[in-house]
Amino acid sequence: MKREIDNKRESRRGFLKNIAASVVAAGTLAPSLLKADDPNLIEEPEWGKKLGLPVDKYLYGQPSPYEHNVVRRVHELLSSGDMYASVAMCPIHELDGIITPNGLFFNRCHGGVAIIDPNKYRLLIHGMVEKPLVLTLEDIKKYPSESVIHFIECPANGSTEWRAPQFNTLQFLKGMMSQAEWTGVRLKHILKDAGIKEGAKWVLAEGSDNSHMGRTIPLEKILDDAMVVWAQNGEALRPEQGYPIRLLVPGWEGNLNIKWLGRIEIGDKPWHAKEETSKYTMLMPSGKAIRFFWPMEVNSVITRPCPDKPWTHLKKGDVVEIEGLAWSGHGRIKGVDISFDGGKNWVEAKLKGLVLPKAWTRFSYIYKWEGEPLLLSSRAYDEVGNVQPTIDQEVGKMGVENIYHRNAIVTWEVKANGEVHNVQIRS
Amino acid sequence: MKREIDNKRESRRGFLKNIAASVVAAGTLAPSLLKADDPNLIEEPEWGKKLGLPVDKYLYGQPSPYEHNVVRRVHELLSSGDMYASVAMCPIHELDGIITPNGLFFNRCHGGVAIIDPNKYRLLIHGMVEKPLVLTLEDIKKYPSESVIHFIECPANGSTEWRAPQFNTLQFLKGMMSQAEWTGVRLKHILKDAGIKEGAKWVLAEGSDNSHMGRTIPLEKILDDAMVVWAQNGEALRPEQGYPIRLLVPGWEGNLNIKWLGRIEIGDKPWHAKEETSKYTMLMPSGKAIRFFWPMEVNSVITRPCPDKPWTHLKKGDVVEIEGLAWSGHGRIKGVDISFDGGKNWVEAKLKGLVLPKAWTRFSYIYKWEGEPLLLSSRAYDEVGNVQPTIDQEVGKMGVENIYHRNAIVTWEVKANGEVHNVQIRS
Repeated sequence: MKREIDNKRESRRGFLKNIAASVVAAGTLAPSLLKADDPNLIEEPEWGKKLGLPVDKYLYGQPSPYEHNVVRRVHELLSSGDMYASVAMCPIHELDGIITPNGLFFNRCHGGVAIIDPNKYRLLIHGMVEKPLVLTLEDIKKYPSESVIHFIECPANGSTEWRAPQFNTLQFLKGMMSQAEWTGVRLKHILKDAGIKEGAKWVLAEGSDNSHMGRTIPLEKILDDAMVVWAQNGEALRPEQGYPIRLLVPGWEGNLNIKWLGRIEIGDKPWHAKEETSKYTMLMPSGKAIRFFWPMEVNSVITRPCPDKPWTHLKKGDVVEIEGLAWSGHGRIKGVDISFDGGKNWVEAKLKGLVLPKAWTRFSYIYKWEGEPLLLSSRAYDEVGNVQPTIDQEVGKMGVENIYHRNAIVTWEVKANGEVHNVQIRS
Repeated sequence: MKREIDNKRESRRGFLKNIAASVVAAGTLAPSLLKADDPNLIEEPEWGKKLGLPVDKYLYGQPSPYEHNVVRRVHELLSSGDMYASVAMCPIHELDGIITPNGLFFNRCHGGVAIIDPNKYRLLIHGMVEKPLVLTLEDIKKYPSESVIHFIECPANGSTEWRAPQFNTLQFLKGMMSQAEWTGVRLKHILKDAGIKEGAKWVLAEGSDNSHMGRTIPLEKILDDAMVVWAQNGEALRPEQGYPIRLLVPGWEGNLNIKWLGRIEIGDKPWHAKEETSKYTMLMPSGKAIRFFWPMEVNSVITRPCPDKPWTHLKKGDVVEIEGLAWSGHGRIKGVDISFDGGKNWVEAKLKGLVLPKAWTRFSYIYKWEGEPLLLSSRAYDEVGNVQPTIDQEVGKMGVENIYHRNAIVTWEVKANGEVHNVQIRS
């Protein structure tokens, strides 16, 4: 009475499978406690019949070889023509929860990944201070530390979408962001030791790598919640995240979170650095550009179903969990609405898990799909009153020449066959 | 006027360093914004003068080569004589925050690391149920998911210390634990589809690897908060953590969190499996053994300073942050006390960051050290009233023949030269 196991996907209500009856293989090192006459016996899998790999092969662990497709990816449309000023996008469609593992954290570089000897690392703090400081890594680590969970998002995330949908994958659409637990010291503690002079208003943060990425940040933000961090999800920063020290500017543009941080200069006016004049400015319909647009706006995207994860595509009769990520650089996510008709009607999703300030928050909605075509959208709002705009609202204000800070509502078209496609809803 | 940078460690109050004056190197691809006549110029580091590594080298990222010593480690005293029934200890002395990166999560195996093809994976649910189930990985992932942060600790953590201090390293003393964000489905949802029969009281969870690790768990706990999980810190479980599916039994003995989970059987009495009779029992002074000792008790340890991290050793005049980890399998940590004299007097530490149930919680105490010898201890208490015992209290009750559930107060001796040693305080 040996029967085949049915591999086909079935609905939540149809979990009962045909059960293959076979005896437990003889010679197993440690036999299962399953009784030989149990009618529910399933075939002993091959990995149950032999020893696994020795423990000493896993002193620093790696993912399963079966997960080799879950990697950051580089797309030529999103790079600057070489692999040094480039960006590797996070596979956010494959992530669960709110932590991005360090090996998958998105990687935006302006001059390649600097490899720094931590013993030679120094952080210079100078400008309008009483006592300029040159700190070693150990000096920095002696300050009282804090650990915080925040996303980092490049303001160019979603930049391809201003005119029309470009990508039918969530990874390339919104993968220029990730989230980690960061550990470091509040910059205000270090600046207290340096002694900020009266009249100081601005801070220049500059990388020590060859791109010398430099950005001007208001002193008020630096004293509020900015940190210099050395750890990411418990271990030292990865090289591509600025090892051994990066700046963390919670909720603000990713490029302000300077990697391989080399110096902090205090001043009374902005520096007008290259990366805040020729780049990271917002070109408006008037032909003028907005500069110093710092916080990342309230945003959200549905991660399940999504185009690049075919097993999440819907099947008629399925009861599915529609799930996604919401975030705001202004504070906590207060709520997320879901629409099934491209924004005409909305229902409230549930926030699940931790709801932290300036952090990815998961939302969820249980839905039974009967095969009707959907225009599936999410709309997040944050605790200070920001709501995601429609595309019409955003384009009406910002035009389409701009690259940055795209936070308009994203819509997936779910076709009658269950396939999921990136579309844009315009009036 | 070129001066040397002073590399010596200095106190928190002495951060001002001599500053080396040199010009920014000519030929830098992107020059720093530092003005050439700034008296605070420091030498341009070598990594600022050349391009870094290309972004495409980091599609799945790895730690800095300078962190090669931060790995799990195997000690023969803690293994069973081969590398298949072995344990690789987590470098908890090197961790920051409360997340353990997946590559460093401790690894206890009974028959090596099984490598499982996720397409061939099946989970059998049977016994006292209305409808036995055989679930594929996709079937499991279609249930509504949850993400939770919990530690997993082997009950043998600290097992070498029952008679006298064995290890002068935190990694070997307490590294048989780690913490992650886990994503999966509550087992109660799956068991609802199977239909639990009247009279059922016990659950057997068994691994599909060749060790067929099997443990009996009360149905009440399974229905309370147990989960089958597929993700760890956002990505698929690592092979050594049970890829593609492990059981999560929050707060209870690590060995109950069955890896490579193969089946769940429901019954009305315990199974008396090998791993709950010949092992994982508590041998008492009477000669009898306690079985089914499930929850991990309230516990704590100071991670900074600690013996195996010399740069955290104290220096006279230093103002330092004494920091550590506290945890309880019974719920949230309510508080942690610190003693500087081996437990005669106690002061209250501050809990910092997230304080989650059945989860590592960081504690902190700022202290100025004037060179006096210390006996530095921490004592945690949880929200349901458990307090860490002294060694005398624990040994008085449990004897010294036992291996498991060591949660007596740990003490570091800080010598006048700042060195840190593992000692035991007995009356």
